Amino acid sequence: MDWLILLTPVSAVLALLFALLMAWRVLKSPQGNEKMIAISAKVRQGANAYLKRQYSIVSIFFAVMFALLCALAFGSGGRIITHFVPFAFITGGFFSGLSGFVGMKIATAANARTAQGASQSLNGGLRVAFSAGSVMGFTVVGLGLLDLSVWYFLLKYAFHLDAGAVTSAMLTFGMGASSMALFARVGGGIFTKAADVGADLVGKVETGIPEDDPRNPAVIADNVGDNVGDVAGMGADLYESYVGSIISACALGVVALQSEAAVTIPMAMAGIGVIASIFGSLLIRTKEKAGPKALLGALRRGTNISALFIAVAAFPLVYFMLGKENIGIYGAVLSGLIAGVAIGFFTEYFTADSYRPTKQLAAATHTGSATVIIGGLSLGMLSTVAPAVIIAVSVLVSYFLSGGAANPSIGLYGIAISAVGMLSTLGITLATDAYGPVADNAGGIAEMAGLPKQVRERTDALDSLGNTTAATGKGFAIGSAALTALALIVAYVDRVKALDPDFALNLELVNPSVLIGLLIGAMLPFLFAALTMKAVGRAAESVVLEVRRQFREIVGIMEGKAEADYAACVDICAKSSLRQMLIPSVIALLAPILSGLMLGPNGVVGLLAGALVSGFLLAVMMANSGGAWDNAKKYVEAGHFGGKGSDNHKAAVVGDTVGDPFKDTSGPSINILIKLLSMVSIVFAGVVLAFHLI
Amino acid sequence: MDWLILLTPVSAVLALLFALLMAWRVLKSPQGNEKMIAISAKVRQGANAYLKRQYSIVSIFFAVMFALLCALAFGSGGRIITHFVPFAFITGGFFSGLSGFVGMKIATAANARTAQGASQSLNGGLRVAFSAGSVMGFTVVGLGLLDLSVWYFLLKYAFHLDAGAVTSAMLTFGMGASSMALFARVGGGIFTKAADVGADLVGKVETGIPEDDPRNPAVIADNVGDNVGDVAGMGADLYESYVGSIISACALGVVALQSEAAVTIPMAMAGIGVIASIFGSLLIRTKEKAGPKALLGALRRGTNISALFIAVAAFPLVYFMLGKENIGIYGAVLSGLIAGVAIGFFTEYFTADSYRPTKQLAAATHTGSATVIIGGLSLGMLSTVAPAVIIAVSVLVSYFLSGGAANPSIGLYGIAISAVGMLSTLGITLATDAYGPVADNAGGIAEMAGLPKQVRERTDALDSLGNTTAATGKGFAIGSAALTALALIVAYVDRVKALDPDFALNLELVNPSVLIGLLIGAMLPFLFAALTMKAVGRAAESVVLEVRRQFREIVGIMEGKAEADYAACVDICAKSSLRQMLIPSVIALLAPILSGLMLGPNGVVGLLAGALVSGFLLAVMMANSGGAWDNAKKYVEAGHFGGKGSDNHKAAVVGDTVGDPFKDTSGPSINILIKLLSMVSIVFAGVVLAFHLI
Repeated sequence: MDWLILLTPVSAVLALLFALLMAWRVLKSPQGNEKMIAISAKVRQGANAYLKRQYSIVSIFFAVMFALLCALAFGSGGRIITHFVPFAFITGGFFSGLSGFVGMKIATAANARTAQGASQSLNGGLRVAFSAGSVMGFTVVGLGLLDLSVWYFLLKYAFHLDAGAVTSAMLTFGMGASSMALFARVGGGIFTKAADVGADLVGKVETGIPEDDPRNPAVIADNVGDNVGDVAGMGADLYESYVGSIISACALGVVALQSEAAVTIPMAMAGIGVIASIFGSLLIRTKEKAGPKALLGALRRGTNISALFIAVAAFPLVYFMLGKENIGIYGAVLSGLIAGVAIGFFTEYFTADSYRPTKQLAAATHTGSATVIIGGLSLGMLSTVAPAVIIAVSVLVSYFLSGGAANPSIGLYGIAISAVGMLSTLGITLATDAYGPVADNAGGIAEMAGLPKQVRERTDALDSLGNTTAATGKGFAIGSAALTALALIVAYVDRVKALDPDFALNLELVNPSVLIGLLIGAMLPFLFAALTMKAVGRAAESVVLEVRRQFREIVGIMEGKAEADYAACVDICAKSSLRQMLIPSVIALLAPILSGLMLGPNGVVGLLAGALVSGFLLAVMMANSGGAWDNAKKYVEAGHFGGKGSDNHKAAVVGDTVGDPFKDTSGPSINILIKLLSMVSIVFAGVVLAFHLI
Repeated sequence: MDWLILLTPVSAVLALLFALLMAWRVLKSPQGNEKMIAISAKVRQGANAYLKRQYSIVSIFFAVMFALLCALAFGSGGRIITHFVPFAFITGGFFSGLSGFVGMKIATAANARTAQGASQSLNGGLRVAFSAGSVMGFTVVGLGLLDLSVWYFLLKYAFHLDAGAVTSAMLTFGMGASSMALFARVGGGIFTKAADVGADLVGKVETGIPEDDPRNPAVIADNVGDNVGDVAGMGADLYESYVGSIISACALGVVALQSEAAVTIPMAMAGIGVIASIFGSLLIRTKEKAGPKALLGALRRGTNISALFIAVAAFPLVYFMLGKENIGIYGAVLSGLIAGVAIGFFTEYFTADSYRPTKQLAAATHTGSATVIIGGLSLGMLSTVAPAVIIAVSVLVSYFLSGGAANPSIGLYGIAISAVGMLSTLGITLATDAYGPVADNAGGIAEMAGLPKQVRERTDALDSLGNTTAATGKGFAIGSAALTALALIVAYVDRVKALDPDFALNLELVNPSVLIGLLIGAMLPFLFAALTMKAVGRAAESVVLEVRRQFREIVGIMEGKAEADYAACVDICAKSSLRQMLIPSVIALLAPILSGLMLGPNGVVGLLAGALVSGFLLAVMMANSGGAWDNAKKYVEAGHFGGKGSDNHKAAVVGDTVGDPFKDTSGPSINILIKLLSMVSIVFAGVVLAFHLI
């Protein structure tokens, strides 16, 4: 059954072709009037310029790391790390960045076209935006599987490495992808939220002009931000999640099963998932006159059918590859899928304004911004309960169904496989997630170009539709991050055992090194969130000062007679986000190495576990608080509790502003952080084993 | 050297006598004019009435638990839990409640007297307020040591139990104390913050009248809140911390040393600490005309001398009790003391307006309330780094100096002893902490009674002095909570081993039950914080509505012609806080039992460790964010960035309002929570061992 691994490269090519097809669909749509084209061009130029600068800074980092890894690999004759590691690291980073870049390219091409489509009909707007989302979704999975396949075939057939060595090189590839993703998420996240917060604070709160008003000098920066943060950042991020889940499953599988099948199953399952996603995407059709409800139904149907497809197809895959005795692993796949859907449901419950929590939060605007903040924070904290319990149940179920009671290794492999199951339909779930920012941008363009009010209403409807479907996507992303991080901890332990079978591993919780590692690890996401939030605050402050300056100094700006200096705001956002992006990312890389050198491998395991649990909870909390504040504000804007311009609205805007860095900078970065920590630990395990204090 | 244990009851009596002396000093001071007496009486009546209601609800809980424990003890013939357990549980709860009650009594007696003293001089105010704080400090330690001594001598000499059985009964006593403390902190915390937030939202923000203005109907409730929350809640809380640290050290010592000395050392060290505290208190003297700086110096000198005293006295104690070979344990004592001071320093650094972080936070008011919130949250998160590292270092140092490398048990005992060292001077540190709320209340009375402006300025100076010294107190409280909780986890493991030596303990971090326990445990503080914050929000909303109603319906209230209906606000706070206090507390009790029944003892250890790390971080973050917001607001009020009434001030008030439940309700309750979880687990270990799923 080894030929099944061929499903991976074949699907990779299919995914990329499908992405091309979708890109063609986007590009052939009309671009709208001249004003729209001009605005879109400004956004595109800003995003291009920013990413260019980001990539040049990041390249320096990658070059330094490459040199370091080369020195370690060639200096130690491949003993501490193998010779493939530096190269794998680079390609992971490259493809992760490329995923984000392609996403940004298509999103900036699609924004005006979506606005134009929405000026015809709701469905017209959806078609363009969703096609753009699909380009991103299928590019991410296509590039991911392509890179995995190339490395796999190269190492196995050209260099004749055994499965263990193959997966260990692939883990470095994951580390490259995670590093790039962290830079993209943090940098882009700071950019987008600094622009957003800055624009809102002066525009909406101080001056009282509407969102996306062309008089606001930060408005282009805000729209650029959506593309470099929500799109390019998300692309790199999910690329990392996707390949991370597959790689970690392969690594655990090699230890658990001692056979090729361990690698074939996750790779082939991902391949089948691509086919399922294409199938599901093709089924998304609605009547021309369909309302938002019908559109939502169509999107849901598409993702559900894809999930069903994979649920069915995974059975024969497991059965024929591993035999009847290991069929429990199929149960793990199912449990992962169900957990993803369940977390998605609770995400929606806590953040959508059709449910009680967000409605109550909107009602808290009656007593001012302080109670909105208190309410949102407690909502976010409360919303951690369900995901924690769901992950707990899913882990237990996967472990025991896979046979962990008799053989712990295979139980742990089952957990890793459940993460692969969860993410296998990423092609389509990411498409439903990524089209939101495109619709958001289209709304901005509609506003700035002065299109009729109903166009904006339609793009808003698309955007809010996107928020709802994105909830499911977030459920999968968060759930899989936790499961993958867990698998990577196990992979780290396996790696230490493989490198030095005599090392006295004592992972008991009452071992002080483990406990201390746990505490330090749990602190890292707090530190990370603090730094990223501070960075947003600082960058936003510069934007505020610049916008105020322009309002003051440019004569006629408020009357619309003089054009604002948009480029200055874009430049400020770019500069400060790039400056502030470095420290958090470097901490993520150094923390596990430094702790390892001091506390040894036992402490590292504690650190990883601590970061996993506190990071998971903090990420969920921040994402959901932010989402609820955003939607509570929209709920007020829709006319409840006084509507736009009321005191309630002002209170709601404060909540939304606080929520911005929560949900789009700190929260999603933490998901990457917890995996990156593990991957760095694995790659540098040899160094830590060679030199450590305790 | 067994006679050293006699130090404990002797010191207990000394402490109580000293508390009496201080109480006499308070009561002999003049009470001020009739108006002050009348206002003070109203506050006292409100506080009395609330505590009466609280105690009657809590008694029902204790009666139910008592019956349950009796059924378990007598039903199992003392096998699952011993016969002493129900009685020990009750006395712990009783004395914890009594500590809070005495504190409240003296604080409500001292508030008008402090205002009167401050109308003479700053020093006059300090003398009364600090005496009241001392009553509380020495009552807490006196009652704690008394109860511990009585149980110890009773069990040892009347019932002839061995050391293991003695300490295990004493752990139940700790559980009673922690349960009571949790009720007091949560209930009192909700009361005080609902009143405070409610009063501020309508008074300061909506109506623009000053704080503590007698026209505000919630003003008496606010002052009652200080007494039932900040005073009675804190008293019960620190009683619990104090006895908890001693008991856990005794429990670990019995396993580690297998000798009486293990119990004698922590008990005797606590006794010496009382003498050190009395000594330090007597040294706090200043010239009559001393300014705030000289007063602060005097307070610091007092606490430092006490700490030095214990640092010196612990050496011969350890040396003679345990011999030269165990002198490393003395190093653990020192490391605990230093860690407490260091955490206190960083607490001050992050929350005092003389340092950069709080100044920067105050500057963030330039860009509105949203950036104040973002800044405060990231400040709080950032402030977790130092305490986490300090605790980590202190744990490692204590462990290895005590000889943990050769014998892990004695290393763990060393960690527990370091917590005892940290809290041994609680008598004086609590006094410097508890006098703050008294000064705060005195300021309220001065305002309401219309005393000259300089009186209020003096009480404000005392209050802010209190904030600074309290930082050290908080450092000790937070640090010792982490160390005690850690010791209790080990005590749980010991207990499981003692109850069923054949149970397959697998505490490795890669065991899924442990990992899942970790995740669920880490989630509990989030849940707990969510519930307590929501409770404050809800209760505050009722207060807001009531205050608005009175402003609307009572004719002449704003002109000061008609008196507000203060009692109505007190009643609303009392009702809602008592109603909302139950659920969080019951969750804390049930969570470890239910998780234990499902995941077994391995899962419980994971749960406790998860709750410890995430609870510690969340508690530090919430306390420091809250403290910084409070002081940033005071900094603005002192005339910076526009001063009172400016837009900056309004933004600062929003931060302060969000910080209220952070620092006075959720944050401190979490410190109790993490220990209560462990104690419940220990007491019910037999039940979990008898019935568990995995």
